[in-house]
Amino acid sequence: MVRGLSRVAIAGVLISSVTLGTWSLADELPALPDPELEIVATLQQGPGNITVTPEGRIVISNHQFYEPEYRVLEVLPDGTTKPFPTEQWSRAPGDDGIGLNAVLGVRADPLGVVWMLDNGGEVPKVVGWNTRHERLERVIYIPAPVTRPGSFHNDLAVDTAHQALYIADIGGDRGPALVVVDLKTGLARRVLEGHPSVQAQNRPMVIDGREVTLGAGEDATPARVGVNPITIDDEHEWVYFGAMHGTDLWRVPAKALADSELAPEELTAQVERFGDKPLSDGISMDSDGNVYITDVENHAIGVTTPDGSYRIYAQNDYLLSWPDGMSAGPHRWMYATVNQLHRSAVLNGGESVSKAPYYVVRVRSLGRTVPGR
Amino acid sequence: MVRGLSRVAIAGVLISSVTLGTWSLADELPALPDPELEIVATLQQGPGNITVTPEGRIVISNHQFYEPEYRVLEVLPDGTTKPFPTEQWSRAPGDDGIGLNAVLGVRADPLGVVWMLDNGGEVPKVVGWNTRHERLERVIYIPAPVTRPGSFHNDLAVDTAHQALYIADIGGDRGPALVVVDLKTGLARRVLEGHPSVQAQNRPMVIDGREVTLGAGEDATPARVGVNPITIDDEHEWVYFGAMHGTDLWRVPAKALADSELAPEELTAQVERFGDKPLSDGISMDSDGNVYITDVENHAIGVTTPDGSYRIYAQNDYLLSWPDGMSAGPHRWMYATVNQLHRSAVLNGGESVSKAPYYVVRVRSLGRTVPGR
Repeated sequence: MVRGLSRVAIAGVLISSVTLGTWSLADELPALPDPELEIVATLQQGPGNITVTPEGRIVISNHQFYEPEYRVLEVLPDGTTKPFPTEQWSRAPGDDGIGLNAVLGVRADPLGVVWMLDNGGEVPKVVGWNTRHERLERVIYIPAPVTRPGSFHNDLAVDTAHQALYIADIGGDRGPALVVVDLKTGLARRVLEGHPSVQAQNRPMVIDGREVTLGAGEDATPARVGVNPITIDDEHEWVYFGAMHGTDLWRVPAKALADSELAPEELTAQVERFGDKPLSDGISMDSDGNVYITDVENHAIGVTTPDGSYRIYAQNDYLLSWPDGMSAGPHRWMYATVNQLHRSAVLNGGESVSKAPYYVVRVRSLGRTVPGR
Repeated sequence: MVRGLSRVAIAGVLISSVTLGTWSLADELPALPDPELEIVATLQQGPGNITVTPEGRIVISNHQFYEPEYRVLEVLPDGTTKPFPTEQWSRAPGDDGIGLNAVLGVRADPLGVVWMLDNGGEVPKVVGWNTRHERLERVIYIPAPVTRPGSFHNDLAVDTAHQALYIADIGGDRGPALVVVDLKTGLARRVLEGHPSVQAQNRPMVIDGREVTLGAGEDATPARVGVNPITIDDEHEWVYFGAMHGTDLWRVPAKALADSELAPEELTAQVERFGDKPLSDGISMDSDGNVYITDVENHAIGVTTPDGSYRIYAQNDYLLSWPDGMSAGPHRWMYATVNQLHRSAVLNGGESVSKAPYYVVRVRSLGRTVPGR
């Protein structure tokens, strides 16, 4: 709803003009316009990812590392939140199975269906909620063997042209993979398992002078996380993705990814390196092919332009403390959640030093936006 | 395909004219016409259930008690069989999850989609195969909590009018139940759990002078099995069902069963007793409202007419040795599988004394038939 957005813009606080980071290539590239970084909502609970519907409704997950009561929220035009899609669906499942265990990935499609990726419980699932009719659109479970021991379904892209969901599974006992869900049949496939494009690089992620670890106490080990950020262009032509601990941004034709008849080697032959990326969490993109990336080491939101070069776009040590998920919204706004995740117990040796407030922010995108991706 | 059916009819062996059983009520009711009992196929592997597509293609499951390599078969016009729907789907699932663990219930819908109920594996599922386009139509998983510990999804009815599947779960730690799958959303619900209509009666099932038991050796206990046979009329108005160990045939409006908004007590208020039934396995029905029942104690196929009375229709000690699943086919033929299940290890104290051949048979129905139910 445009009315909501304009109210947010009025309420928004302009935090910083463009701040070019210290990233080496940035100096050689032309300056970017003012990102117009704004606070959209101030939150007491740490958010996960974010999506914006075609009508401008903002939906965020609550990050499972912070053990929230409600898994998914809608951010209202006044910056307050309410459980999404309903009180019942937003909580842990009850005896009837209705509810969500743990959600990070959320994506709205062009028909206003918000797809929520529940990576918890005995069997992970995707729940599609039709926001135009306020009713359940679809539930698709993803059991073994497509879900592997150790799987962690982190984020997703929605492809309404090829009727498919593309899920980034950072875990799995045989390596990270993409999971392709055929929306026509409900059948899921595990692809690119262990391929270089989904593997973590052996690079430390250092934030505020400390290397991010996984686990508690003496079990804490340096984090090396595979494929996590994933998005799709608004022509449904290319799917962009990369490892969290990785400096390569990859892409593969959506048509190839959605094709269940394609042999594994025919698929991998179509995966190509698109450009540079920082160690990151979520990504989104605009209609000009610019990919926006939450640059967690640099407290920044950056952009990889179609020439493959990466630059920091908006940077703020305080406000962008682990920017996490990203989503295009209407009117050339690009939204992000910020959640201090490197200070959560999971990524900080078992001790949580995260402190509210957390944020939903937005920047002005370089090109036109199609909401949801 | 009618060509197939006519060939079968030529090849078929007319086994018996009508044989009224010893069942007490039968004497008071008018004689039924000749059931024209025929052998359609002679099988070396014990079948489970059966369905016939609108085009007359015959599909049977292989009973899991006999540990078959192929879970589902098509019976060809010459009486031979081949894996259905494909070699890969008919076997145990591989690393890609494609395949079937254990199938009993199979039902064709008016569009030629054969729905196969896989009660095995970690997560039970329903697989719909489009026989007109020879492609996967749908996979719907049914995880906990709708599937309960001890669940055994035995048989199903397909309701294309209300876009739902109705599954008979004879097991479950809180009692038998119907499982309603919404084909629009993929969401399943567990209903009528522990209701008298789905509970077994405390009645022994005696076949060939021996009470049927469950389990092996000293663990074998008298079998008391709840809701199992289930079918739907061709107007999609009523769903008929009953316990295997039960003499009551129940029905409930399909519209009520498919309505997820209906409170449990509003649903149970609409369950009504339709008539008598013998201890039985599968049921099917014709367009005049006659329900055909595999009468396992009497080596017979019987019929409960709309007045609620039950009569044996076709009886043959040798040929109808545990008639199991039933399905209406085209041209007023009513099909049944026969599998000597009371002689399987599971129902015979751990020792299998079943011996091939097993059969697919058919009888002429009293009213018009709509295939699949």
